[in-house]
Amino acid sequence: MKLRRSIPLLAVCALYLPLSQADEGMWLFNNPPLKVLKDKYNFEPSPAWLEHLRKSSVRFNNGGSGSFVSADGLVMTNHHVGADCLAKISSKDKDYVKTGFEAQSYSAEPKCVDLELNVLMTLDDVTDRVMSAVKPGMDSAAAEKARRAAINNLEKESSDKTGLRSDVVTLYNGGQYHLYGYKKYTDVRLVFAPQKAIAFFGGDPDNFEYPRYDLDICFFRVYENDKPVHIEHFLKWSEAGASEGELIFVSGHPGRTDRLDTVAHLEYQRDHVNPDSLNLLRRLEVLLKGYADRSFENARRAEDDLFGIQNSRKARLGMLAGLQDPVIMDKKRAEEKALREAVNKDPKLKADYGDAWDQIAGSLKTLVKIREEYNLVERGRAFDSELFSIAFRLVRMAEEGAKPNSDRLREYSAAGLDSLKMQLFSEAPIYDDLETVKLADSLGMMIEVLGADNEVVKKVLAGKSPRDRAAELILGTKLKDVAVRKRLADGGLKAIEDSTDPMIQLAKIVDPAGRRVRRTFEQQVDEPQRQAYAKIAKARFAVYGASVYPDATFTLRLAFGQAKGYSEAGQKVPWATTIGGTYAHAEMHGNKEPFELPKVWNERMGQLNLSTPYNFVSTADIIGGNSGSPVVNKRGELVGIIFDGNLQSLVLDYIYDDQESRAVSVHSAGIMEALRKIYKANRLVTELTGKNL
Amino acid sequence: MKLRRSIPLLAVCALYLPLSQADEGMWLFNNPPLKVLKDKYNFEPSPAWLEHLRKSSVRFNNGGSGSFVSADGLVMTNHHVGADCLAKISSKDKDYVKTGFEAQSYSAEPKCVDLELNVLMTLDDVTDRVMSAVKPGMDSAAAEKARRAAINNLEKESSDKTGLRSDVVTLYNGGQYHLYGYKKYTDVRLVFAPQKAIAFFGGDPDNFEYPRYDLDICFFRVYENDKPVHIEHFLKWSEAGASEGELIFVSGHPGRTDRLDTVAHLEYQRDHVNPDSLNLLRRLEVLLKGYADRSFENARRAEDDLFGIQNSRKARLGMLAGLQDPVIMDKKRAEEKALREAVNKDPKLKADYGDAWDQIAGSLKTLVKIREEYNLVERGRAFDSELFSIAFRLVRMAEEGAKPNSDRLREYSAAGLDSLKMQLFSEAPIYDDLETVKLADSLGMMIEVLGADNEVVKKVLAGKSPRDRAAELILGTKLKDVAVRKRLADGGLKAIEDSTDPMIQLAKIVDPAGRRVRRTFEQQVDEPQRQAYAKIAKARFAVYGASVYPDATFTLRLAFGQAKGYSEAGQKVPWATTIGGTYAHAEMHGNKEPFELPKVWNERMGQLNLSTPYNFVSTADIIGGNSGSPVVNKRGELVGIIFDGNLQSLVLDYIYDDQESRAVSVHSAGIMEALRKIYKANRLVTELTGKNL
Repeated sequence: MKLRRSIPLLAVCALYLPLSQADEGMWLFNNPPLKVLKDKYNFEPSPAWLEHLRKSSVRFNNGGSGSFVSADGLVMTNHHVGADCLAKISSKDKDYVKTGFEAQSYSAEPKCVDLELNVLMTLDDVTDRVMSAVKPGMDSAAAEKARRAAINNLEKESSDKTGLRSDVVTLYNGGQYHLYGYKKYTDVRLVFAPQKAIAFFGGDPDNFEYPRYDLDICFFRVYENDKPVHIEHFLKWSEAGASEGELIFVSGHPGRTDRLDTVAHLEYQRDHVNPDSLNLLRRLEVLLKGYADRSFENARRAEDDLFGIQNSRKARLGMLAGLQDPVIMDKKRAEEKALREAVNKDPKLKADYGDAWDQIAGSLKTLVKIREEYNLVERGRAFDSELFSIAFRLVRMAEEGAKPNSDRLREYSAAGLDSLKMQLFSEAPIYDDLETVKLADSLGMMIEVLGADNEVVKKVLAGKSPRDRAAELILGTKLKDVAVRKRLADGGLKAIEDSTDPMIQLAKIVDPAGRRVRRTFEQQVDEPQRQAYAKIAKARFAVYGASVYPDATFTLRLAFGQAKGYSEAGQKVPWATTIGGTYAHAEMHGNKEPFELPKVWNERMGQLNLSTPYNFVSTADIIGGNSGSPVVNKRGELVGIIFDGNLQSLVLDYIYDDQESRAVSVHSAGIMEALRKIYKANRLVTELTGKNL
Repeated sequence: MKLRRSIPLLAVCALYLPLSQADEGMWLFNNPPLKVLKDKYNFEPSPAWLEHLRKSSVRFNNGGSGSFVSADGLVMTNHHVGADCLAKISSKDKDYVKTGFEAQSYSAEPKCVDLELNVLMTLDDVTDRVMSAVKPGMDSAAAEKARRAAINNLEKESSDKTGLRSDVVTLYNGGQYHLYGYKKYTDVRLVFAPQKAIAFFGGDPDNFEYPRYDLDICFFRVYENDKPVHIEHFLKWSEAGASEGELIFVSGHPGRTDRLDTVAHLEYQRDHVNPDSLNLLRRLEVLLKGYADRSFENARRAEDDLFGIQNSRKARLGMLAGLQDPVIMDKKRAEEKALREAVNKDPKLKADYGDAWDQIAGSLKTLVKIREEYNLVERGRAFDSELFSIAFRLVRMAEEGAKPNSDRLREYSAAGLDSLKMQLFSEAPIYDDLETVKLADSLGMMIEVLGADNEVVKKVLAGKSPRDRAAELILGTKLKDVAVRKRLADGGLKAIEDSTDPMIQLAKIVDPAGRRVRRTFEQQVDEPQRQAYAKIAKARFAVYGASVYPDATFTLRLAFGQAKGYSEAGQKVPWATTIGGTYAHAEMHGNKEPFELPKVWNERMGQLNLSTPYNFVSTADIIGGNSGSPVVNKRGELVGIIFDGNLQSLVLDYIYDDQESRAVSVHSAGIMEALRKIYKANRLVTELTGKNL
């Protein structure tokens, strides 16, 4: 809460001219912050050092990060990243989330149903090829089509050639395009998970708080051809772990930042995106909490969704508070003013880039008008149901599959089809009661927002109340059966046309309405913004001449900083907690859920070295998506794992700060202490350290 | 959830022409449903019977109902009505809400800090005097002023003459005006409360559910001159209590219904009132839950607010679902169409009343435009703080006090000043941390809704973030000190003008902005609606010639019905539960909060007659505000106490149903069994029954 006071007003240009003393940035691996590292820390990572860290880093495609920690494909991530898989392979009678899990052999490692891991093998700048597809004089619609075709084709070519998952990534909001080639793993199995009660000790009340006491870890293993993979690059476990003041690196996949947004864009976020997201998140939180509170089994079914919602709600609140803080907005205004003045002073720059800011403001006026319909109809917020989402993608896949690759909607382009099908054909359990509750509520929301007399609303509801319509759809559809989905997918357009499945029929109602609003979005919002942000990126390079990192895009980035405490309201907050502090923290909260420790933690407390470092903070520049990122020292050894930021870090979406904002990690020594003394996880400890318990 | 299917389509006119078989209606005591009672139940209540019940009925001005149950001023209500007082006289170390309470003597009965009870002594129809104040040809502004003056004056005259609290009540949305004279009690003391764990057993998950197992009762005693009052009218306790199929009556204070609203008005509720209320309620629920979860003391501080919010959220969800159900809306449309056609067929009726519906629709167009500002600024939603509310009322009271009574805003008219001051000078605890959290959030909401560039918003925030501004205001104000409030109130306009208190200064910023939007509301929305609804009321009488009950207005009403089960999804739901069922219900939910019974309930289970009726349902027509209403039999004996409606009853705001909608009561025999065997409350039992344990 104290962030505002902690931003030195001097640092107005910090974002564009990284000061040598700031541990700022989510850097590209092909453009690392070599100068800052040399100047501030006298450290020069070699290309081999960087390659090793990159190839040891793993993206969890359900929204997190991780790293290889053994030659036999062992991967560590956070429990709250692994929880998605844990929940999907759990049932009423076998709840891995609650009880935790430990495999004693390869054969005892259960397979996740739809988890895809990626490792970034190749990076190429394809900006010219994407940019040159858009010819001078093309209108926005033609430009959007040409750009999309270029990207779809680039990905297809690469994937055909290399066999790698190939993604064209938009950087600097459209300033650059890079082609990433990922080694893809889809056979991922569970090795070890602690109980949620200790992994998420303190629950929602402690989330984004520090000091913390969480064992937020989870281990998986990657298989190929039904055997553990043997890999060259993995991180060596540091038994000592991070020490106070040490230079550390974080290699992970920050999901999204908006630091390069124009002021108009930030105001749009302040006035629309964040308030609307929060209303939706609160709505879902109250809905799911009401469902969960009715029985233990309901609680289990809704648990992972509910965590994600509460987590996002806290994050968004911090983001909105940042944008409602005049100090931050004034800083952003001053930055933009300085850049625009510099551009306007130079006739050439002015002619080339001067209109970019107004172009973005103009696109946002369109977006304000269409955003509700776009979110509800095209992005599916009005149809909060896994079964609807499956139906919708089946309908779209059939239609898009009938077109040449260059013309397809991005998410149905040839290069990504395998990953899409993996999601579509997932055997993850779907619960009718939960589906009905969510779908009924979201249909009701559609009436509230678009109005009962809206044509799409009327067609969707078919004269029924939201509750009755939702019940009818969920009970009537056969899409819970994966074989039915496969038959529809294989049958192409004809199968979709012939289908009498009520959910497929609903998707066919929604599809054209979604396409209509999407076209407006792509042609009048997204394409103009790409063009304008490309101009701003060039203007920024021209004016400041310095190296700038792009906003986060859920792709691999390198951050750095120090393991370091901070001061809050005059109080010193130490850099690390100890594993013994966990017990005092539980006691202080009456040992009641979510501060109730697993039994084994109380039974084996006496065996612990209570002063072992457990959770610690650092100045590394991270954000949501970095969960599970390895924290490594200069020798490239794993000294911790990122799992959270403190409350003060929530504005990092818009602006960096290193006074009070901190990344929060589990310490490698604390992890090892728990694995050895609490869990007596001999097999895992041996694999990680080469030593028995 | 099954309401829709349960409304017989035949009953289209049920509202206007009560069918003899429907137990419908919240009837005025000066216009009771004598014909239906005679026809259907062969029962003719005498004037004395009605007077006795009326004068035994008590209004709790914090939003509930109750009744006298002994000659010594003993009053019974629900625990969730009494909880407001319980919380205000509790502290961290003495939590009456959690532990319950039993006084063993008069001197041990603690006084509530700001509870006012009312008993309805006189009722007069003053429609002509109010209506005739508005002269033909007056524009809306003049009409509003004249009507307000007439009402303020009527109240003042009556209060001066009778010494009673005198309220002019608007009935039929403006069709009639009645003057109510209340005996007012302000020295109310706590006698007995069970633990919240049993009073609200099942918590939010079970709220509005049936079957139920709640001991939702609480006893107070009314004092005058520091002695228990001796009263003539109180209800005799029935030890047997209600039996299945028995005719019962409910005498209480239903808060609000909207059954006579036009279709345009209902659509306005569907599209604006209910969705906006729900967004606000969810926002507050998540905010307070986040605050409460941080410590036990936080939870205690927020408990009563949180209950109210969750309770309203469930109710509103049911109401919105009703309005989003085409069956209900089609029924409302058909009703309106029939009435309008009848009016339009008769030239005289058409000339006099034909334009009323369009008049209401027109007023709603204005309301849509101003409602956000009206709610945020004038109704204080942007300033969610007890201290702000005190400051605002002090500022207004000073200004209004300087005007002649006839010109004052309604809530500052002379007749109501004593009750207002009782609230203003309440010694109820105010918690700085909770105030700051709520005020910061509501200021943030004001930015979201009115925009950061709105002039009032800018003045209110004074260049600060919502969090900083809230902290500054709450820390800076001296209004927690009741003596400071009294000095300001006594000092009149001059004291307000001179005050440097930051909260008073904020109230002075808000006051003129609030008055501006309020004027628009009163002149362009409220006054035209009163005029139009008066026409519709007359048209309805002219067309249907039948007696119609007015919508609920938190004034005394008589409802009736049968103690009777129902069918839900083909399952029979019995009319009553037993006290023994409580234990099975706890067991089914793992005996975990909110299904964890108080220790004494487990210890003394063996002493109970487990088959004693405990909670029961009836067809009586009730709604929020009826909580705590006595349920009496034909002999006027107390056989139960209303505390809830089932989920199916949530649409009763708009439409009556007796197929599945049920009022839920605690049974008088179940109460007595618990008082005797669990609580061994000898003093209370003796006072209620004349018998020792």
